[in-house]
Amino acid sequence: MKIIIDAMGGDNAPEAVVEGSLKARDELNVDITLVGKAEEIERCLGDASRDKIEIVDAREVVTMEDDPSTACRRKKDSSMAVALKMLKDGKGDAVVSAGSTGALLTGATLTVKRVKGIRRAAMAPVLPSMENGIMLIDCGANAECTPEYLLQFAYMGSFYAKRIMGIDNPRVGILNIGTEECKGGELQHETYKLLTAAKEAGRINFVGNIEASTMFFGGVDVVVSDGFSGNIALKTTEGVAKFLFKEIKGVMTKNLKNKLAAAVIKDDVKGIAKKVDPNEVGGTAMLGISAPVIKAHGSSNGKAIFAAIRQAKSFAESGMINDIVENIEYMKISEEV
Amino acid sequence: MKIIIDAMGGDNAPEAVVEGSLKARDELNVDITLVGKAEEIERCLGDASRDKIEIVDAREVVTMEDDPSTACRRKKDSSMAVALKMLKDGKGDAVVSAGSTGALLTGATLTVKRVKGIRRAAMAPVLPSMENGIMLIDCGANAECTPEYLLQFAYMGSFYAKRIMGIDNPRVGILNIGTEECKGGELQHETYKLLTAAKEAGRINFVGNIEASTMFFGGVDVVVSDGFSGNIALKTTEGVAKFLFKEIKGVMTKNLKNKLAAAVIKDDVKGIAKKVDPNEVGGTAMLGISAPVIKAHGSSNGKAIFAAIRQAKSFAESGMINDIVENIEYMKISEEV
Repeated sequence: MKIIIDAMGGDNAPEAVVEGSLKARDELNVDITLVGKAEEIERCLGDASRDKIEIVDAREVVTMEDDPSTACRRKKDSSMAVALKMLKDGKGDAVVSAGSTGALLTGATLTVKRVKGIRRAAMAPVLPSMENGIMLIDCGANAECTPEYLLQFAYMGSFYAKRIMGIDNPRVGILNIGTEECKGGELQHETYKLLTAAKEAGRINFVGNIEASTMFFGGVDVVVSDGFSGNIALKTTEGVAKFLFKEIKGVMTKNLKNKLAAAVIKDDVKGIAKKVDPNEVGGTAMLGISAPVIKAHGSSNGKAIFAAIRQAKSFAESGMINDIVENIEYMKISEEV
Repeated sequence: MKIIIDAMGGDNAPEAVVEGSLKARDELNVDITLVGKAEEIERCLGDASRDKIEIVDAREVVTMEDDPSTACRRKKDSSMAVALKMLKDGKGDAVVSAGSTGALLTGATLTVKRVKGIRRAAMAPVLPSMENGIMLIDCGANAECTPEYLLQFAYMGSFYAKRIMGIDNPRVGILNIGTEECKGGELQHETYKLLTAAKEAGRINFVGNIEASTMFFGGVDVVVSDGFSGNIALKTTEGVAKFLFKEIKGVMTKNLKNKLAAAVIKDDVKGIAKKVDPNEVGGTAMLGISAPVIKAHGSSNGKAIFAAIRQAKSFAESGMINDIVENIEYMKISEEV
């Protein structure tokens, strides 16, 4: 198993990326290919063992200022573009990058390409929940969607939840503003019909419409959405969690009395923060691409890169892309490409 | 100032509604008209003074099972329908109801009617923030919107923030999945143009696109959205807050050591919970209706009803509906009704 790493992607690259990669090499028994400026990677590796570590030199870096839709095409010698090209050429089993989400998505789509028959790739992070977490798909790759895209997201999320999250018969819901079938707009109504048919055929465990207020408390494993609403839900989750932890920190450091009390429960509170921390959860899978691509959070530290590599490994071992290929006929409602 | 109350609306009606109404009568110096089953209202009033309290008998109740789009028309003698009719007829200054949101919205639109020129009424709650709170408009009244609706929401939210929240020159943003002008779909792009023009004309303090991850930390007072995405943001906020407080409660009651520590900071933690508690914040204004209508949370207790009446009073005194009337020409981009 070889994981190809965009060593220059993210706010803390290449230091954090190399750190996480070394940890993954040691603990996950994977081969690592670090793509980026060789001298910088060498510097970060320092006197660490080079066992199972390969460096591939790439002289350019995709930045947040680059236009996402053209970055990989215009910077062919960037660490991101080279990593994706290697994946395409079978020189590794998965790519992990903490670089620009848009550039990675476009690059993966154009270079690695979608599974044949998949209309759009989707961003699918796993959010915390009272049960095993919820895969929210799509979270921003496609601001405007058709019912067919959402049908495909439902299948892909379902395969992922089963193969990688280890959930038998994953429950799939539609993100909506109420649970009744009539709620939402045309996109939700049409998707409801498609998923009901898939349920009746025994292919998707469709549980109906899901509200964002209840999804964290269980009853659903995969929540399908257009990328606009999904992104709003994802970013609201981040914002509210950050807001509340800031308030709680304020309480815990308000005065000496509070500080002393806080010292007792601090570790447990940190445990909650960890549950919702993107650095702990791992990366976001780009589903629908013909090989595993994981987007790590832009602010990833070494631990987050490690978590993303662990996820990439599980993804590559899972066989879920094969699930898509084998079921693609059920995932289409038209023959247009 | 007379506030008309749907005494039968909400999970805890009529007890909580009467309790909150009496408190408002005593502390806010308002006249109260309680609409609903007279004998039940009498029972709840018990031996409290009837000073400034009027009871209007209505024999029916709109329930959550009624079809929202026809409830007020079919149940003409319901507490909700009678309350709205009284408002229409000038027999009071505002209506407060904790009943079905959809029924109240439809009833208000059909009976009280929209301000002339306003295309759609909007649900506009105020969310907590590090500053003065954020008005999120629309939060579910209109799943599908046009740019003109959003332009109108921007003006209405701006008037409300100025007149009722006391914010000078309120900052208005568009809820979007990134801050760049190119983000989102056609709705966001067209709205961006309309709000830029309104800014250039000196009418709206438009600050651009806003992400849900940052809106809680300041920089914006009014966030405009289609009702679908706005509802997703609202319900995600509720869900994440509930999820995290549940986790924190778990930590605080985990063992004796934690319980003792928690006792010290409990009140401060409750202070945070209060900030995000719908019972404390008050109700949701229905903007665009030609007289003030406030939807209180369905699970309102007496305190929440009191807060909603306080909000209704501020709304009725504010003159913001007059602002809409006076500026309606700037709020239209077409002449269609």
